[in-house]
Formats: sequence, C-alpha cells, structure tokens
Amino acid sequence: MTVSYRLSEIVAQLGGRVLGDASVRIAQIATLENAQLDQISFLTNSKYRAQLASTQAGAVILSEAEADATGLPRIISDNPYAYFAKVSALLNPLPAASPGIHPSAVIGAGAKIEATASIAATAVIGAGATIGAFSMVGEGCCIGENVVIGSHARLYPRVVIYRDCVLGDNLVAHSGGVIGADGFGFAMDEGHWIKVPQIGRVVIGNDVEIGANTSIDRGALNDTVIEDGVKLDNQIQIAHNVHIGAHTAIAGCVGIAGSTTIGRYCRIGGSAGILGHLHIADHVEIAAFTLIGKSIREAGSYAGIFPFSKAEDWRKHSVHIRHLDELAERIKTLEKQLKSLSAES
Amino acid sequence: MTVSYRLSEIVAQLGGRVLGDASVRIAQIATLENAQLDQISFLTNSKYRAQLASTQAGAVILSEAEADATGLPRIISDNPYAYFAKVSALLNPLPAASPGIHPSAVIGAGAKIEATASIAATAVIGAGATIGAFSMVGEGCCIGENVVIGSHARLYPRVVIYRDCVLGDNLVAHSGGVIGADGFGFAMDEGHWIKVPQIGRVVIGNDVEIGANTSIDRGALNDTVIEDGVKLDNQIQIAHNVHIGAHTAIAGCVGIAGSTTIGRYCRIGGSAGILGHLHIADHVEIAAFTLIGKSIREAGSYAGIFPFSKAEDWRKHSVHIRHLDELAERIKTLEKQLKSLSAES
Amino acid sequence: MTVSYRLSEIVAQLGGRVLGDASVRIAQIATLENAQLDQISFLTNSKYRAQLASTQAGAVILSEAEADATGLPRIISDNPYAYFAKVSALLNPLPAASPGIHPSAVIGAGAKIEATASIAATAVIGAGATIGAFSMVGEGCCIGENVVIGSHARLYPRVVIYRDCVLGDNLVAHSGGVIGADGFGFAMDEGHWIKVPQIGRVVIGNDVEIGANTSIDRGALNDTVIEDGVKLDNQIQIAHNVHIGAHTAIAGCVGIAGSTTIGRYCRIGGSAGILGHLHIADHVEIAAFTLIGKSIREAGSYAGIFPFSKAEDWRKHSVHIRHLDELAERIKTLEKQLKSLSAES
Repeated sequence: MTVSYRLSEIVAQLGGRVLGDASVRIAQIATLENAQLDQISFLTNSKYRAQLASTQAGAVILSEAEADATGLPRIISDNPYAYFAKVSALLNPLPAASPGIHPSAVIGAGAKIEATASIAATAVIGAGATIGAFSMVGEGCCIGENVVIGSHARLYPRVVIYRDCVLGDNLVAHSGGVIGADGFGFAMDEGHWIKVPQIGRVVIGNDVEIGANTSIDRGALNDTVIEDGVKLDNQIQIAHNVHIGAHTAIAGCVGIAGSTTIGRYCRIGGSAGILGHLHIADHVEIAAFTLIGKSIREAGSYAGIFPFSKAEDWRKHSVHIRHLDELAERIKTLEKQLKSLSAES
Repeated sequence: MTVSYRLSEIVAQLGGRVLGDASVRIAQIATLENAQLDQISFLTNSKYRAQLASTQAGAVILSEAEADATGLPRIISDNPYAYFAKVSALLNPLPAASPGIHPSAVIGAGAKIEATASIAATAVIGAGATIGAFSMVGEGCCIGENVVIGSHARLYPRVVIYRDCVLGDNLVAHSGGVIGADGFGFAMDEGHWIKVPQIGRVVIGNDVEIGANTSIDRGALNDTVIEDGVKLDNQIQIAHNVHIGAHTAIAGCVGIAGSTTIGRYCRIGGSAGILGHLHIADHVEIAAFTLIGKSIREAGSYAGIFPFSKAEDWRKHSVHIRHLDELAERIKTLEKQLKSLSAES
Repeated sequence: MTVSYRLSEIVAQLGGRVLGDASVRIAQIATLENAQLDQISFLTNSKYRAQLASTQAGAVILSEAEADATGLPRIISDNPYAYFAKVSALLNPLPAASPGIHPSAVIGAGAKIEATASIAATAVIGAGATIGAFSMVGEGCCIGENVVIGSHARLYPRVVIYRDCVLGDNLVAHSGGVIGADGFGFAMDEGHWIKVPQIGRVVIGNDVEIGANTSIDRGALNDTVIEDGVKLDNQIQIAHNVHIGAHTAIAGCVGIAGSTTIGRYCRIGGSAGILGHLHIADHVEIAAFTLIGKSIREAGSYAGIFPFSKAEDWRKHSVHIRHLDELAERIKTLEKQLKSLSAES
C-alpha cells in the first residue's frame, strides 16, 4: 500500500509549477543517483548537476535557474530543498499511533491525557501531567509530575521530562533526551560542595525538535527557555538558565554553559561550545569545534579551529604555539635592530 | 502549602546573623532582579551590586564586607553563596517518594530493599542487589545484579547500573546515566578486534552527583573509582580504570580516557578532555575545551583553547599554523643574517 | 564456583606454548602488580617490565622476545595482548540469560523471537521485529517495528532501536544507545525550518560493539551503514548517511557529521570530529580532539590539537593566534628590508 501522486497533484498541494508531463506518477523521493522511474529527485547543490543527465528519476525538482537543465518532467520551485522536504513528507507520512493508553503504561493521579493522545507501553505519566491532543508518548518515556505537553507532540521511546516543565505544540523529542534535570550548581563550603537547589523549569516553545541523548537542564532560580522553532541535534548539553532564541539550529555534541543567551536564527556547528553568562546576537553562525569565550554582538560567521595536518607536521608546528610570545618579541627586536641599522647605513 | 521562615528562624538553623528586622517572613529565594517582598535574595557577585538598590526583595544575604550596603533586612554570612544554597534547600525541600515498591517494578531474587526505600514504577532491581535506607529508585531505572546502593540515594528515572557496582550514600544520579558499562578494550588479532572482558567494577563514594546522560565505565581488571563528594555534570564520559579524587567537579561533555588518575578538588571545564594513563595533581583547574595530553604534577590553572574570531579572520590567521615551523626558521635566519650584517657594518 | 584451568589446558584451547610448570592452575587474570598465586598476568607494555620481577602471579603471558625474562611458569604467544583477552574471556564467561520472554515484556504482533533468545523485564519488542537465536534483549530496551537483530546479540538495558533498522550477529549494544533516530535535516522556508523526513535506515554488520549513550542516526534517503567489526565507544554521535568501514574503532565523544565515509581499520581518538560529506581513507588514525575538515586520501596519522599550558602562558601566547597573518607579513617585510640592506652594504 504505497501512496503515489501525479506531479499535477503535488503542485496543487504544495505550489510550484510543472514543466513536461504533469501526469507522471511518483511514489517516492530519492537522490539523483539512486532514483527510479516512479521516483522524484531534486537538485539543490550544483555539484551534483552532472548527475542530472544520467538520472533514472521519473521527475525532478529544480530551481527557476535550472528550469531548462533537463528534459525530464520537473517541478520548478523557488526553494527546491524546502520543496523536496515537503514532497518527502507527502510521500512518507509518519506512522500514527492509535489513540489510547497501553495497559502497561502507568498513569499518575490527576493526569490529563487528551482522548486523541497515545501513551505507549511502559510509559509513565506523573501525577497532574497534561498530554495534549494527538500527542504520542513513546515506550518507556517518563513524564514528571505536572509536566505540560502541547498537542501533536511526538516523543520517541525513553524520553525523560522532569516535573513542572512545559513543552509546546508539535514537539519532536528523540530517545534518550533528558529535559529538566538539575543544573550543575554547587557552592564550596569548608571543603565540601553544597548543592544549590534547581528550582526553575525548562520551558519549550512550539515546533521544537530535540535530538537523541540530548540534555536540557532546568533553571537554578529562573527557567531555562527554548523558543519556538529551535532545532537541536543529538548529544547536546544545554545548561541551566540558557535561553535559545527562535529558529536557532544547533548541531550534535554542542555544549552551552549556564545563563548564556543565544539569539534567533543562529546556526551552531557540531561539537562547538559556548561559555556561560554570554550573549550571542541573532543570525550568528559558529563553526564546528569552536569555543566561544566572549559575547558576540554582531551577526556573522565565527570560527576557531586548530587546522589538522599529518601528525608529524602537527608536532613540528604546534610546539611553536607555546612560544608565540617569544617569536613575536624576536620579530619586534629584529624590526628595531634593522631600523637602527638602516639609520646607521 | 508553602513553607516560610522568619529571618530569625533561618539564622537559628543555618548560622549567620541578622541586621534589620529579624521577624520578616520569607517563602522563597530569588535573584535581586526578580525577588518579591516575601522572598530573600543574595549578592555573591559584585557585578550585581547596583541591583541591590532597586531590588524588591524582603531580605538579602550579604557578606561581612557588604553588611552596610543596604538598609534591607539582611543575613550576614562568611560565605553568602553557600548560605544561599542552604536557604534554598530549606525553602525547597525535595519531594519525598513514599516508601515501598510500585507494583509494576520488577524485583530480582534475593534483592535487599530497605523498608524506607522507594522503588518507582517500571524500575527493575536485579537479583542480590541492595538498596539502602530512604533511597529512591526512579521510574525505569535498571539496577544490575548484586549492585549495592547506600542510603539516601536519589536515582532519577532511567538510570542504569550494571552488575556488581557499589555506590555510596547520598548519591544523586540523573536520568540517562549509565554506570558500569564495559570499558572500551579490544586487542587486534589477525585483522579482527577481540574483546577484552571488563571484569572490574565501578566503585563510587558518598555524596556524589552524576549528571544526565553521563557514562562511567567499569574497570578492565581493577575498578573504576569515584571518590567522595565528586560532582559530575551531564554528558560526561569516564573510561575504564579512571580514578577521580574527592570533591573534584567536572563540567558537561568532558571525556576522560582510560586509567587516568585525577586528584582531589580539581575543577574541569566543559568539553575538556584528558588522555589516558595520566596523573593530574590535586587542585588543578582545567579550562573548558582544553585537551590535557600529559600529566600535570603541580596545582594551578591550565588551558589550551584556539581563540575564536570572525570566520574570515580565522581563515587568514589559521593557515599560518601549518607553517609555524617555517616562520620560526625564517626568524632564526633573519637573526643570523642581521647579526652578521651588524658585525660587518 | 570458580572456573580454573591448568596452563596446559589453556594452551590446548588457545594455542601458544608453556615454559615452566604447565600444571599450574589459574582462576583469574590480573595486572602484574595485583596478581596473586592462582592468577595469571601478562606483559604487553615494556614500561611494566620491572614489575615482572616482583609479581606474585602464578604465571604470566609473554611475547617470544620476553620468553626468558622470568622464571615463572609462562605462556609464550605471538600476540600477548590478544592472548590475555582470550584467557580473560575463558576465565570470565559472560552470564547467560535464560531463554524466554519475561512476563512484563511487551511483544508486538508478528514479532519473531527465536526460542533461544531472552527478552528481559519491561523490554518492548515492536510488531514484526525479529530477534535472532541466543540473543539477549535487556531490561527496558525498545525495539522498533520490523527491526531485525541477528543471533548472539547482547543488548544491555535501555537500548532503543527505531523501526526498520537491521543489525547483524554478535552485536553488543550498551545502555542508552539510540540507533535509528532521525538525522538532523531541515530546510529553511520563509523563516521556518521544515523537517526533511528521514526515510533511510541504520544497517549494522556483524561483530559490532556500540558504547553507552551513543547515537547513530537513520539515513535521510539512503541508509546509514556500519560495517562488520566496527567498535564504537560511549557518547558518540554518528549522523545520517555516515558509512563506517569494517574494523574501524572510534573512541568516546566523537562526532561524525552527515554523509561522511570512513574507511576500514581506522582509529579515531576521543572527542575528535569529522565534518560532513568527507571521505577518509582506510588505515587512517586521527588524534583525540582533532577536527577533520577535509577528506583524507592517504593512510597515516593526523592531528590538530592546541597544546595546553599554564593558563597565564596560554593567555600570553594565544593572543598572537589572532595576529599570525600580521606576524607573517612582518617577517616578509623584514626579509625584504634585510635583502635590500645586504645588497646596499
């Protein structure tokens, strides 16, 4: 039972226009290299342009600029990559769970679960928690007391949400995510660390996606806040009282220290880090593997990566890092000496 | 049902002294900026001193040095940050689970669970495991065979502890923590990796906190050891046979390779790394994002971070990293030439 | 009930030859420093050679080159480290779970579970999934619909495998592992991120080990592929459409971005990173903490680590990183000036 659509039906739903035979029927989306006759492909990166000539796809999605780059049936769109995403969603509807509560799930007193929501096997819903309409809570999820989850959320198996956190509509949370654990706050007192109670919450807007094994800590006093449309990849650590602006996207393994504020529409590369108590402006791009150690007030791209090389070259060059100040001094000395020598001669 | 205390009652319990009206009643703790009349605030960072004048707090916690910085009712303490932590704990007692075993929990043969302990829904306790007095095992936790957990431990949902590990009193373990998985040990044998059985345990002292999604591997032959009072943030990786000294604090995303020994009272910044088989002295501070590649014998602060800049500047400057040795040679050559030129003239 | 073997029995099973008393009985393996009379030890690193003289071990495993380094009963092997691994496996057989399905496990319609397989308490097996012979699915694991797991697999508690993924024989998957979550794919469309459906799978070969809290994302269109014999440590992030060649070993906290292909027999150090859409040749070694930002066509060792130092030295030297281009210019200027000055004189 495969879904399939004619090109004419696709543009009727998603916009864009067809060039060539609009009656071609499409059942799946694939790369130019792998696509077959009942599949549609796309060109969003000019480096794959050569594959357009040899593709077996039944149709392709192209930008206006590439409209004449093939004779294949094609859909022309202003934004072929977004169009591809929409066509793929059309052809690959996510499996819907049937509404209701699995008998092995454990539901706390006073939990409010919408009739259209689905609670999978072995999930645990805390007392007083709210699960919105059409939301799916996966196997083994643990939803704490008084948590609020909006509608159309999709929690994959084994997500944990600690008590009192609030999450918006259309949440996607992948397995292993931990939302609302204690922030890392301790005060040193006579040789022992005393725990600082973490009494804030995590508050998450609408249309947020949270990757596998990502952690978002609750606030120490105020809340940790993730605004609408934020996308977080896997293995990310968001410390207490961080505030992430709307539509910011953060790649895997990033760590963000406490009380840092990140603007809207930022893009942060994998394994990057941001120290605590900083402000990052809107529309900032941070390269992978870069540590941001002070606030960034201006939109733009930032980087700080040690360039790799063959290990023996790295050893040869990196020893000088520990002597850069002397090297700089020696250059200054040379400049002075040369100046006085030039003056003499 | 909110707890509230007069300042006089607070100092009776926690020490310090009151200046101003000691009968003021306090129900919560908050930042200077957000505090309301029934809340107490604190000044632990002089950069917030200006907020002291405008705060709406009913009282504040100050150091001796700041004792006269406000006319508000105030508690004076030698260590305002630790005092704040204690007041917050007083005002925000952690919810206690009721003792007993949830009917959906699965308890192995011969497990010894103290009557005051609480085992939450869907938790699994292995055969022969011991759970100490007043300890709480959260939903979905999996406690392996013969594990020993001390008293007053608090395991949040979905902590896994592999068989035979031993954990002390007052443990706090956050969701997603995995304690006692196999260390990463393989021997190459004719083109195939052979697994080295990991027969050590993880042994954890008292008063340890383990963050969300943190992993601590069991030892290969001997044990992996975490001493008393160690605090571990989220997303940390502790490899087999690591030994972490008492009261050391490690921030998120740190990785520590096998058989490394870390001293007492160290502080390790986020996303730092320490290679294997090293020794780190007591009282060492390691900056975020720093890789420690050899042993540190002396207390102090250490760092190794590539400074970030605008991406175009980074490109311009970082290319020279791969030529530092040539640059150093050219400086040496210049020095020689200049010397011989000076000698000539 | 301890297993024990005579040296003669060990070599009969594992090869190698005995020097000295072959009737010595061995019950466990230990380091030279800790071994007792009924234990065997080994020397695989010449830096521990001094311990050979003082060890209390009843026997040792040595290379041909060290065959006469002690008078203790000893087994001589071409590869003492691999031999040690095999002896340890002999002496420490993994506990086998009894076949069958725990009554608290939840089994989906049409799941095919071999009679010799074991499904632990609170595990959830999705509809249509296949669990091979002698495989063990630990407590709280969630196996998605139509997942295929080969024989002799060992899944520790709380592994999640998303639907349709395929995993080979002899898999070892540690707790917290998440296999098959959505890759991080979004298209920006008029100020909003649109999700790109992730319709590929994760396909994993035989003899693979996956560490605790490691994530492997499913492919966007094609599959993410992990070939035979790959060993992955803890806290690793493998993005969508990555392809990892056979027998490659990756240490903890590594992140690999989307669509990158890694060769066979590579070794990647802890917290390293590899950007997306790259090709890494076979037999490449990447140092810990190194970011690989372009393809590597040639076998060998590669590194890119900022060397650490005392924090005050780091501050002094690292400021020059942001001025390397000026320093290089000043050297060039000096060279020109000196040349013209030499020409003059």
